[in-house]
Amino acid sequence: MPSLRIALCQVDVVVGALDSNVDLLLSALDEANQADCDLAVFPELAICGYPPEDLVYKRAFVEDNRAALASVAAATADCAAIVGYVDADPNNPDVLLNAAAICANGEVKGVYFKQGLPNYDVFDEKRYFTPGTELPLWSIAGVTVGVTICEDMWIEDTPCVPMADGGAQMIVNINASPYHQDKIEQRNEILDALVAKTGTAFVYLNLVGAQDELVFDGASVVIDSSGKKVARAGQFVEHVHVADFQVAEPKEITLPVHEVTSRTSPSRSDLPPKLVPLLPPLHEIWEALVTGCRDYVYNNGFTDICFGLSGGIDSAVTAAIAADALGPRHVHAVMMPSRFSSDHSVSDSEVLCHNLGISSQIIPIEPAHQAFLEMLDPSFHGSEPGLTEENLQSRIRGVTLMALANFNRWLVLTTGNKSELAVGYSTLYGDTAGAFAVIKDAWKTQVYALAEDYNKRAGRLVIPEGIITKAPSAELRPDQRDDQSLPPYDKLDPLLKELVENNKTASELVADGYDLETTQRIARLVDIAEFKRRQSPLGTRITARAFGRDRRMPITNLYRGAAGRDEAPRRF
Amino acid sequence: MPSLRIALCQVDVVVGALDSNVDLLLSALDEANQADCDLAVFPELAICGYPPEDLVYKRAFVEDNRAALASVAAATADCAAIVGYVDADPNNPDVLLNAAAICANGEVKGVYFKQGLPNYDVFDEKRYFTPGTELPLWSIAGVTVGVTICEDMWIEDTPCVPMADGGAQMIVNINASPYHQDKIEQRNEILDALVAKTGTAFVYLNLVGAQDELVFDGASVVIDSSGKKVARAGQFVEHVHVADFQVAEPKEITLPVHEVTSRTSPSRSDLPPKLVPLLPPLHEIWEALVTGCRDYVYNNGFTDICFGLSGGIDSAVTAAIAADALGPRHVHAVMMPSRFSSDHSVSDSEVLCHNLGISSQIIPIEPAHQAFLEMLDPSFHGSEPGLTEENLQSRIRGVTLMALANFNRWLVLTTGNKSELAVGYSTLYGDTAGAFAVIKDAWKTQVYALAEDYNKRAGRLVIPEGIITKAPSAELRPDQRDDQSLPPYDKLDPLLKELVENNKTASELVADGYDLETTQRIARLVDIAEFKRRQSPLGTRITARAFGRDRRMPITNLYRGAAGRDEAPRRF
Repeated sequence: MPSLRIALCQVDVVVGALDSNVDLLLSALDEANQADCDLAVFPELAICGYPPEDLVYKRAFVEDNRAALASVAAATADCAAIVGYVDADPNNPDVLLNAAAICANGEVKGVYFKQGLPNYDVFDEKRYFTPGTELPLWSIAGVTVGVTICEDMWIEDTPCVPMADGGAQMIVNINASPYHQDKIEQRNEILDALVAKTGTAFVYLNLVGAQDELVFDGASVVIDSSGKKVARAGQFVEHVHVADFQVAEPKEITLPVHEVTSRTSPSRSDLPPKLVPLLPPLHEIWEALVTGCRDYVYNNGFTDICFGLSGGIDSAVTAAIAADALGPRHVHAVMMPSRFSSDHSVSDSEVLCHNLGISSQIIPIEPAHQAFLEMLDPSFHGSEPGLTEENLQSRIRGVTLMALANFNRWLVLTTGNKSELAVGYSTLYGDTAGAFAVIKDAWKTQVYALAEDYNKRAGRLVIPEGIITKAPSAELRPDQRDDQSLPPYDKLDPLLKELVENNKTASELVADGYDLETTQRIARLVDIAEFKRRQSPLGTRITARAFGRDRRMPITNLYRGAAGRDEAPRRF
Repeated sequence: MPSLRIALCQVDVVVGALDSNVDLLLSALDEANQADCDLAVFPELAICGYPPEDLVYKRAFVEDNRAALASVAAATADCAAIVGYVDADPNNPDVLLNAAAICANGEVKGVYFKQGLPNYDVFDEKRYFTPGTELPLWSIAGVTVGVTICEDMWIEDTPCVPMADGGAQMIVNINASPYHQDKIEQRNEILDALVAKTGTAFVYLNLVGAQDELVFDGASVVIDSSGKKVARAGQFVEHVHVADFQVAEPKEITLPVHEVTSRTSPSRSDLPPKLVPLLPPLHEIWEALVTGCRDYVYNNGFTDICFGLSGGIDSAVTAAIAADALGPRHVHAVMMPSRFSSDHSVSDSEVLCHNLGISSQIIPIEPAHQAFLEMLDPSFHGSEPGLTEENLQSRIRGVTLMALANFNRWLVLTTGNKSELAVGYSTLYGDTAGAFAVIKDAWKTQVYALAEDYNKRAGRLVIPEGIITKAPSAELRPDQRDDQSLPPYDKLDPLLKELVENNKTASELVADGYDLETTQRIARLVDIAEFKRRQSPLGTRITARAFGRDRRMPITNLYRGAAGRDEAPRRF
């Protein structure tokens, strides 16, 4: 059986960074050539980054990305390269295609256009692209190869099957496949089923790194035609993973085949199979959050971050992730006690900062707190400000952090979790003020699990036990605790998952046995918090239904999904 | 020739308000029956409001909307009704269709499914719906009618043509067609071309009112088969407009026709044609902004708003729009002078409030300004805070407005214009803090034009001349003027239009003769302000390319579209 040597070029390209993306691709190509590879495989839209969104509406951007592709193709030699980019119909520049160029010996030998265009969840590809229809095959180092792109593998009428039936000995699928929990299992099921159905080897190549709220996990794999995994690259790490594997015998060829390279397998001894082990679930999520934070901060031109350290679990986990992502000396904790803060909040926080090796400063907010109360006193007409005063403290902290960030050119991280974001248990322009929300897609119960797993991996209580065991509290009034306003999180989170991730209504959940009053109240909180979420910063998506581009709810929304009439609009 | 009496039911339904939407439809249906109409026409997705976005992923929502449709159908008598709603495939509840029910005599006589699904600009209909394929015709009071939905009229292979060829004497097109400047001319061109091509009368029915950033202008029309407009409803007003018109003689029928009603035209004298005149362009924009503001405030459960009144043109125009939308006694101006505010800012503002009849209060921000400088002094290490202090003042105002809003249950309006939003000439959590940005899609030069037109229509200087003629300034440091940081607005706005609305790059514009340094600088400001825009409130869309769902740019974006290399990502 013929043997092929493939370089899985799992690179962290950045949206719009055409020049440096080309540099990255050329460097990986160089490694592939040094390793005597037959084929180097790069991610979907590797030239321009994924997803480029409305940038593709700029004609100059599409032209620049095509010029960038040409410069990568020009650098290829006898090792073929498969490279994703945006193409445009030469007869109509408004017709755009998600394309894979098959390059060798200094030129583009041919192009495949993506057929399955996802337009659900976080995807908007029908907004941008026209689907391809052709089924070309490619002859690379004597092996007949089918090239496909991402969704092509997932759709019912996948082009993989006719390509295999038409003579492909191997299918390459290049991806920018966003991570979420359990995604890797879904992918493996699809791949295993396709290998079984087609009897064809698969090369699955995925992007790595993060782009705004999406994070890409890499974990590229090669599966031989018997269904055996013969190579797997790491998760959330950028590298060129070289793998040898035996391709199945040639089949009868009934589709057009384009000659790419004619080199015959050089006499070389096969490399031993190298399968990087998969991370355990909580560690995988942690690395996703670290990668999302690091790429957002760096790719937006920052090196340092600050955040409000409250003594609670959310800001502690955020601090630990930021320290992993950027290095402890780039992480600046700010403690901003108010007249209602507890003493142990500050002492626990100091231990955490010491353990993480991050800097901290204390800025009591009393002077501004007092000044605002005096400024606003005539407008409060002698009434107790109540919730207004709680929000005021949170906003003073937001202003303080932003001033430090402006002055030092730091980026502000927010520390809210998905449970809070769901019910709007936060102050807009207060604790939601910041550029990036590190754990916004982690439920509160999951934040605890992440903290415990982190301590376990560290082999010591980096996050002090007092932070993990104290009752959750915003500390915005005396003796405040979250469970005075909300059900306990182990009850709340499952309910929120049903409402947010499974699109259930209160009526349906009550029929399923959930408590009527609680369910209707929480469902309503989720709906009316949409205006807060829309102005909150983005953060890394780690679930199959995250707040953000994944869940597009109207702000103005009078549907209650509950017994009784929907709320009527006001009419005057 | 047969005469038909039609009720153009231009209603302001609200997303999710199923019960009250039904009430509204029943009330309009009642009017239509009282007026002895043959047909009452309602907007696209009238049952659930438009656009329902991801609400349609809730199965219970789709079921509830179908039950609501059934209750409207049950109330129909001999006057047929065409009503938009969301349907689901009975064999697969995940397959959703944008549908029009044709109802009469207490039941749904049949359904048409939208074929053209827009998935560009503000539209995501391919995310939700499966296109219809059938071409049914309907016999209503002896007239053969084709029913279509919105985009069906705009697409190249419009179903209107085969319906007319197949025997339709009249085409009804129900819409939720979002407003932008010049949209009505585009619509008229399409309609005129279709009437000319098909020789068929058209009933164009549009939604009225606003939903989040979209505003719908109504302006429903009836055009007879000779191309003559025989009825037009008003813009931005909710009403039932009844029109009689002569339908062309029956044609040969080759498509299936479903019997809806068999009534013959009663003996009645025709109503005189009533065409509500179109508004002049600036007045039209004004009414769009008033409608957008009113529906956002009311439909989110508020009656009163507050805003920061600075003495500049933006907050003055915002105040006037809010007073028109909500009534002056529901509009609360807050003047928050700092140590750098000019005296005439306060005196001009007081005249404006008097002229508009709105309340005002003055809260000097010096106490909080001083408190923050003291709190932050150790962190500034003796340096001058500079831009940090400018942002600080703006954020203190944001906190003050939010405290008043929280305390009084007011909604905060922001006052920024499109030019500022484009270049990021604003302070996040400062002047961008608020729920709704009334003039966010109006260029600065357009804000001046709106102010002058408003004064002209009022016949007096409601907005004082001093506010219109003073040099634009943020007043955040001594003698600050916008033109110290930005080109004058009459130069800036055309450049921004090219960059933002026409997707041009700096390189292309320099080739077109724009100044190199200015163009590259402004283009870069537009790109890096994306993170601010993403956390800014929504506001009414009045152009064909608004910031918001209409323009989906990545925040992390290293493309510069300028000479030289793109910025490289940071790597450590």
